[in-house]
Amino acid sequence: MASQNTIGFIGTGVMGSSMAGHLLRAGYPVQVYNRTKEKAMPLVDQGATWQARIGDLAAQSDIVITIVGFPQDVEAIYFGNDGVLANARSGATLIDMTTSRPDLATEIARQASEKGIEALDAPVSGGDVGAREARLSIMVGATESAFNRVRPIFDLMGTNVVRQGPPGAGQHTKVCNQIAIAAGMLSVCESMIYARESGLDPYSVLKSIESGAAGSWSLSNLAPRMLKGDFAPGFYVKHFIKDMGIAIDSARRMGLELPGLNLAEKLYQRLAAAGKENNGTQGLFWLYEQGLQKSETSTQTH
Amino acid sequence: MASQNTIGFIGTGVMGSSMAGHLLRAGYPVQVYNRTKEKAMPLVDQGATWQARIGDLAAQSDIVITIVGFPQDVEAIYFGNDGVLANARSGATLIDMTTSRPDLATEIARQASEKGIEALDAPVSGGDVGAREARLSIMVGATESAFNRVRPIFDLMGTNVVRQGPPGAGQHTKVCNQIAIAAGMLSVCESMIYARESGLDPYSVLKSIESGAAGSWSLSNLAPRMLKGDFAPGFYVKHFIKDMGIAIDSARRMGLELPGLNLAEKLYQRLAAAGKENNGTQGLFWLYEQGLQKSETSTQTH
Repeated sequence: MASQNTIGFIGTGVMGSSMAGHLLRAGYPVQVYNRTKEKAMPLVDQGATWQARIGDLAAQSDIVITIVGFPQDVEAIYFGNDGVLANARSGATLIDMTTSRPDLATEIARQASEKGIEALDAPVSGGDVGAREARLSIMVGATESAFNRVRPIFDLMGTNVVRQGPPGAGQHTKVCNQIAIAAGMLSVCESMIYARESGLDPYSVLKSIESGAAGSWSLSNLAPRMLKGDFAPGFYVKHFIKDMGIAIDSARRMGLELPGLNLAEKLYQRLAAAGKENNGTQGLFWLYEQGLQKSETSTQTH
Repeated sequence: MASQNTIGFIGTGVMGSSMAGHLLRAGYPVQVYNRTKEKAMPLVDQGATWQARIGDLAAQSDIVITIVGFPQDVEAIYFGNDGVLANARSGATLIDMTTSRPDLATEIARQASEKGIEALDAPVSGGDVGAREARLSIMVGATESAFNRVRPIFDLMGTNVVRQGPPGAGQHTKVCNQIAIAAGMLSVCESMIYARESGLDPYSVLKSIESGAAGSWSLSNLAPRMLKGDFAPGFYVKHFIKDMGIAIDSARRMGLELPGLNLAEKLYQRLAAAGKENNGTQGLFWLYEQGLQKSETSTQTH
């Protein structure tokens, strides 16, 4: 893909700003749009062009990349008169990197193909650090040809770039990722609260258990923060709740019931209801510290 | 600790046989007892002495090590007229390496100390491979002096030997280990069943997710076996149910409710009720494949 292809980048939050920065430094002309304009200004200082309207950005880009908060934001950006789909050039490529609904990804791809446009879904994991260091895992749903065409762009942002299947497959894979985290967070909280309540030194317990069959990224990375009472995000509770909601909804469409995921979502909802939705996901430990994980307390806290 | 100290070893199953073998090769005189005599014969061939009665073994050992199946087996071995406590020498050291109840460990230590004997609890993780390769994690509850005295013996069997606190602390730490595994198993099963049901290639999904925040020992080591339908133990379902029962009971004594652990135990009980208790713990995936994880099916399968 020649460097002169213009990239339109929508969503310059913590993740998007780092990702767009890599594209700028690689020599791509980048146009940016963000709901809160000020957050896009550092990229403009680095050479990006501000676009005040999504339609204008889409009309002037060969590739449009979006990474925003919620599926409803994705809908607002892609659909409607000033949206990406109505204004994108024929032959353009659209890439949604938001963690969003699989069925929304396939719907965007369907509508895009009617206009001679290819749409990919490519959600990521790796967080703000992964975005900054261009070490994201990028899970791609796309035709093979579209994937091969934009692969050089993905490689500027991530180290683990995998095409998982046709449009929608990237979002389905991200769902798998969040499901693999969900009930595991209960394990970590429960192991550490038991350690503390039984009079053990939880840090010493970690030394015994984290390198064996109980080991996980969450145990090694989040348990120490839990124990310190460091609930700063990382990954926001409110975003994890969104992701689990997508997963539950998508599983339900397949007739699939996932009790561990359901329980995790219920406890995180309870955490959010207690005003902790802007903490990091490790903040679930607070619920256990307060005894609010108990089944009887669900009516009190809702 | 001088090599001439005689070690009495009770419980020569898969784990115990490997562990006793390391002690024999290090030059310790080892006496062995096992409920099923035949399983102890390979150790006798390596130089161990068979003892037909637990009381005789205890009376002739400086150190008694036990590693058996269930807490009730531990009770049978330690208590009663032909038991370890009634027959052990004054000054002897007793080490229970079974995964057992914390309160049983403290009770044994209490009764032992009345006779001038020290008792340690030292459950392990690392499985049959860890036992064979002397790379176990050994979680020790003991006085500092007793721990220092028998440390050379632990070092012959494990690489991660940590004194976690006074008697009982080893068992409490093993409880933490099993809790950290329990709900995490649901995560792994649910992620993989979602992957398969949504039409993804689950192995390809693993490539995208196992090195990030969703990563765990279970995901990397057990998910591939689940996907192949390889449910051979590893770690038996029936033993995991025992361990989760100990954890739930011990948590309850502290007034602690652990919903993720409770859910995992319920699903594993359902798996056992379906006749799968001699499968490995990764066999929980079968329950999801059959749709038996659903809340409505609980009455059908019990």
